[in-house]
Amino acid sequence: MIEFKIIHEDKKTKARAGVLKTPHGVIETPIFMPVGTRATVKAMSPDELKEIGAQIILSNAYHLYLRPGHDIIREAGGIHSFINWDRAVLTDSGGFQIFSMSEMRKVTDEGVEFRSIVDGSVHFFTPEKVIEIEEAIGADIIMVLDELTGYPVDKKRAEIAVVRTAQWAKRCKKAHQTNQALFGIVQGSTYKDLRKQSAELTVEIDFPGYAIGGLSVGEPHEEMLEVLNYTVPLLPKDKPRYVMGLGDPTSLIESVAIGVDMFDCVLPTRVARNGLAITSIGKVNIRNSKYAIDFSRLDPNHDCYTCKNYTRAYLRHLVKAGEILGARLLTWHNLSYLIETMKEARKAILEDRYAEFMARYQSKHEKEFGTV
Amino acid sequence: MIEFKIIHEDKKTKARAGVLKTPHGVIETPIFMPVGTRATVKAMSPDELKEIGAQIILSNAYHLYLRPGHDIIREAGGIHSFINWDRAVLTDSGGFQIFSMSEMRKVTDEGVEFRSIVDGSVHFFTPEKVIEIEEAIGADIIMVLDELTGYPVDKKRAEIAVVRTAQWAKRCKKAHQTNQALFGIVQGSTYKDLRKQSAELTVEIDFPGYAIGGLSVGEPHEEMLEVLNYTVPLLPKDKPRYVMGLGDPTSLIESVAIGVDMFDCVLPTRVARNGLAITSIGKVNIRNSKYAIDFSRLDPNHDCYTCKNYTRAYLRHLVKAGEILGARLLTWHNLSYLIETMKEARKAILEDRYAEFMARYQSKHEKEFGTV
Repeated sequence: MIEFKIIHEDKKTKARAGVLKTPHGVIETPIFMPVGTRATVKAMSPDELKEIGAQIILSNAYHLYLRPGHDIIREAGGIHSFINWDRAVLTDSGGFQIFSMSEMRKVTDEGVEFRSIVDGSVHFFTPEKVIEIEEAIGADIIMVLDELTGYPVDKKRAEIAVVRTAQWAKRCKKAHQTNQALFGIVQGSTYKDLRKQSAELTVEIDFPGYAIGGLSVGEPHEEMLEVLNYTVPLLPKDKPRYVMGLGDPTSLIESVAIGVDMFDCVLPTRVARNGLAITSIGKVNIRNSKYAIDFSRLDPNHDCYTCKNYTRAYLRHLVKAGEILGARLLTWHNLSYLIETMKEARKAILEDRYAEFMARYQSKHEKEFGTV
Repeated sequence: MIEFKIIHEDKKTKARAGVLKTPHGVIETPIFMPVGTRATVKAMSPDELKEIGAQIILSNAYHLYLRPGHDIIREAGGIHSFINWDRAVLTDSGGFQIFSMSEMRKVTDEGVEFRSIVDGSVHFFTPEKVIEIEEAIGADIIMVLDELTGYPVDKKRAEIAVVRTAQWAKRCKKAHQTNQALFGIVQGSTYKDLRKQSAELTVEIDFPGYAIGGLSVGEPHEEMLEVLNYTVPLLPKDKPRYVMGLGDPTSLIESVAIGVDMFDCVLPTRVARNGLAITSIGKVNIRNSKYAIDFSRLDPNHDCYTCKNYTRAYLRHLVKAGEILGARLLTWHNLSYLIETMKEARKAILEDRYAEFMARYQSKHEKEFGTV
C-alpha cells in the first residue's frame, strides 16, 4: 500500500510538498511521471530514467493487455521485474485509450467493447476485468476504469459518464484484492456542477488517492485552470491528487499552486521525437535552420547529459536525419527539464516562496508554452 | 598520422595481433569498427560505444557531405568534436554509396556525377573533391575514392574499375595535405588477376594502410574467402589491412586467419533494428513466438548490458512493439558481441592458439551464420 504525508504547505498558495511512500521507493511530490505506455518510456532506458531522477513511471493496462499480454507480465514476476525497473510504477486503466478511439468501441453500463489496435480483434473490458489486468501487471498504483468524454461535449453526455465512472469505480474497488493502491478518477468535463457531483460520488467510495481526468483534451488553458481551481478543493486534503495528461511546464506549475501533487503526459517524450525541446528559454524547435551552425548547448541553464555533451548543430543534424540518437537526446532533455522543474517547485514550496517562483516562471514563459 | 606495429604473429595461421596508434587513441587489432554512417552509430550514444570497448568508429564522407555538409563539421572543429567522440574515426569516401545507386550516377575518368538521396540535387565528386571533404571532416583515417562493381560483373567492366580506382587513388594522394592517414583500396571483383593488378597498382602509390573493397556484395562465402586468401598476401605485411563491409562473425574470424586487421559493416546494427541478435549460440530472431515467455538472458555466454539486465521476453515485446529501446538493446548486444569476439581472437593470436579458436568457433556456428 502507499502512505502519503504532506510535509509542508506554501504560505501564500495552495501548493504543498509531500512524501508518497510506495513498495518501490519514496516519491517526493509534486512530481512529473514519465509515461511508458508500452512498458518502456520511449527512447529511454531504466538506468537513464534513474539518472534524470524519475521516481515513478507510468504504464498502460490497455496497451499491455493487448501486447505482450498481462499474463506474460505476471509470469515475469510483475512489471518491475519485466522491465528492469525497481522504482514505483503506476498503471492507467486504459480508459483514455479506449475512449479516444470512439469509432472502435461500444459502451454500456456493463463495460466497454472495443477493437484491438494491434490486430482488430474484439475485446470487452469491465471494471472487474481491468482490475484483474492491473493486478497481474502489478504496479504500485493502479487506476479505476473511467469513461471520459472529449471537448466540447454536451452536458447530458458528460453526466452519463460521471455516473457511470462512479459506478465502475465502486465495482473496481469491490473487485480489487491486492495491496496495490487503487485511485479513483473524477470526470465531468468543464461543467462545474458535474465535477462537484463526480468528486462527491468518487470521494464517497473512499480511495487512497484521486485523479482528475478528462482535462487537456482540447479545452482552452484558462478553462482547464478554472476547472482545477474548482475541483481540487473538493478532494480530501490528505490524499494525493493527480491530474492526468498534463505535461506542459506552465500548466504543471499553475496546477501545483492549486494543490495538485502528481502529473503525467506523453507530451515531453512525443514532442522530443519530433525535434521540439522544452527549455528554460522556451520552446526550441531544433529543426530550425538557424541552429545549423549553432554550437551552443541546447538549454544554457540546464545541466542534463544532452546539454552538457552535445551542440544544437549536432542535435539538429540527428533529428533532421531521423537518427535514433536525436530522439534519445531530446527525450532525455525534456524529461530531465520537467523533473527538475518540479524539484525546483518543491524547493520553492518548502521555502514558502512558491508564488514568486510561479510568477517568475510565468513571466518568462507565458508566450512560449501555454499548451504545447 | 598513424603508426602500425605487429606485436605477434600466430604460429599456425597468418593471423596477427597489432597496435595501431592514431591521434585519437590506440587501436588493438584485429578490430571490428562500428559504422556511424551519418555521424552516429545508429541507436548508440558515444558513451555506450566506449562502454562496449569500441576503439574506432566509421563515418561516411558522402553522407556527411550531403547532410549536414562537411563545412558545418569543419566549423564544429571536426568530426570528433561534432559528435562528442574522442576516440579514432575512419571515413569512407562514399564510393560504395555512390556506386550502389547505379541508376543515379554517371561515371567518367574525371569523376562521378550523382543525385543526392536527400533532395535529388546533382553533385560531382572527383578524387580531389572527396579529399577536400574528408579533410574537412577530419577523421584519423580517410579512404580514397574508388570505383566498385557489383557481383557478378564481367571482367572488362571490372578491369576498367581497377584501373580507374588506381588513377583516382594517385590523384587522392596528390591532393591530400593533412596528416590524416589516407588508405588505398584494392578492387577487382572475384578475378584473381585483376585483384593482383589492383594490389600492385595501389601498393605502388604507397599508402599507410590498404583496404580490400568490393567484397561481400553477393558473391558466395567461399569465393570471398578465396579472393581474400589470394589478395591479402599481395599487400605489405607491415601495413594495416582492412576488408570493407564484412560483419558476420564467421567471416571475420576466417579473415583474421588470412591476415586481415580491420573490419566494418552495418550488419550488426542493421539486423539488430530488425530484431536479430548475433549470439554465442547462433542467430536469435527475437520476434519468434517461442521467446514470448522466455525469461532467460539473450545470450547465456555474454555479459553486456542487454544480456545482464533484460530477458528475451521483454526484448521480444520491445521489438514487436517497434520501441526504440528494443533497437538500442539489440544493437548494444550485437556490437558488444562482435567487439568481444575480436578481443578473444586477439588473445588467441597472442597465445598461438588461433587455429583452435577458429575451429571451435566454426564448429559451433557454421550452420548458423555464414553470411548473415
